Amino acid sequence: MAEFLYGHWAVMEALRAGRRSIEQLLLVESADEKGRIAEITELAAKRSVNVRRVPRRIIDDLAEGGNHQNVVLRVGPYPYVNLEDAFALAAKRGEKPFFLLLDLLKDPQNVGSLLRVADAVGLHGVVLPERRSVSVTPAVVNASSGAIEHLQVMQVNNLVNVMKELKSHDVWLVGLDIGPEVPPIDRTDLNIALGLVLGSEGEGMRRLVRDTCDMLLSLPMRGQVASLNVATVGSIALYTAWQARGWEGWGHVTAPSKP
Amino acid sequence: MAEFLYGHWAVMEALRAGRRSIEQLLLVESADEKGRIAEITELAAKRSVNVRRVPRRIIDDLAEGGNHQNVVLRVGPYPYVNLEDAFALAAKRGEKPFFLLLDLLKDPQNVGSLLRVADAVGLHGVVLPERRSVSVTPAVVNASSGAIEHLQVMQVNNLVNVMKELKSHDVWLVGLDIGPEVPPIDRTDLNIALGLVLGSEGEGMRRLVRDTCDMLLSLPMRGQVASLNVATVGSIALYTAWQARGWEGWGHVTAPSKP
Repeated sequence: MAEFLYGHWAVMEALRAGRRSIEQLLLVESADEKGRIAEITELAAKRSVNVRRVPRRIIDDLAEGGNHQNVVLRVGPYPYVNLEDAFALAAKRGEKPFFLLLDLLKDPQNVGSLLRVADAVGLHGVVLPERRSVSVTPAVVNASSGAIEHLQVMQVNNLVNVMKELKSHDVWLVGLDIGPEVPPIDRTDLNIALGLVLGSEGEGMRRLVRDTCDMLLSLPMRGQVASLNVATVGSIALYTAWQARGWEGWGHVTAPSKP
Repeated sequence: MAEFLYGHWAVMEALRAGRRSIEQLLLVESADEKGRIAEITELAAKRSVNVRRVPRRIIDDLAEGGNHQNVVLRVGPYPYVNLEDAFALAAKRGEKPFFLLLDLLKDPQNVGSLLRVADAVGLHGVVLPERRSVSVTPAVVNASSGAIEHLQVMQVNNLVNVMKELKSHDVWLVGLDIGPEVPPIDRTDLNIALGLVLGSEGEGMRRLVRDTCDMLLSLPMRGQVASLNVATVGSIALYTAWQARGWEGWGHVTAPSKP
């Protein structure tokens, strides 16, 4: 079934990644062809995508109230992958597996925000449960600024079964939790084959998910307000783990060459 | 002039912090007095705050379209502090000064999100420019989950002057920047008297603000999507700095005592 991605970055990254079938680019008829819109139509031309100008209300409808920025892309379904694909990417790069598992997250903004970080730190795979969780909707693609179009996402029937399978492949599962008895995140060297597990907004991990983790770690907090947003916690944890890997894969030039 | 804070956490934390004058608590007349609303009315009673039930449309108006969750608190202005207050808090705690400076951030959600982290890591002060920047509006209080009611926030006329004053007090100013020539954030020991400087969404720091920093550091990124949200970058940087301070002030119990 066709989906309608909306917003500059979501549309741009779907075109750049080229992993979905691309059916048509729809633009608001009055939109100027400059800036991002010009970049998008150029990309569409390169990929021989049909472009159509339509009245704004059609774009409004297709974006279902989302902030479409005058552009919608009609695409085929999101290309979910499986565990083998994710392990293959790690092997190809010569890196220890690095996964993120999200247990029943509900808010597209949170998931989108985490996916941007997942892209920034070079994760090999992101695991989402099939039911009672955010899936890869146009709202999530938009909230991820299109990052998800480049990521390997698995949608699984049973998260605990996948956790067990990851453990059988020697992936160490670290759940982010709170509470005074949970050691802080810098207590353990995270430069390992790692699956980071995050629980849902408000409720945390489900019992069985928590119990299946090899280890629980916490993000310390000393403030008056008792909690941080799950996207904030997950972002910090992902960067902590990537830092432990020595910013592996980062093309940093320490001393810029000067003429 | 009176302001109208809205939402469970914003109202709750304003009541808990007790730093503003509290004039009246307004509840939607049909709202059940249970859960958070019950906690809020209890707190209000303890503080002898007048409570009034009003039609929903009045609350809708006072919250100006914000997600008020049936509750609005009429309060006096936000109690901004000055630099001396912030240094005094650091001295009282026996800690090296730890500040956040925000250069022209525009999005209340980003600022709110950063303020939650500022509270979690125990900052002594947050500096905001007076013009062309978010100030402490009810929307920001709401986005911060009320954290700002506990924080020391300075609103300053000229950010660069304040940066110079901080430098004269031996506070080291570290700007978060991007680019291949900027060293990564773990290159420097951040266990120092520190002011972390963040630039605005999209545009980064203004030239003079950047030039006034003692040092620029970057958050590495290896992904396909070129940027992270400023709230994500700032949150990670604040935690990196707090980690360098050994989670100072965190009441962590390493080994839980068992009977």
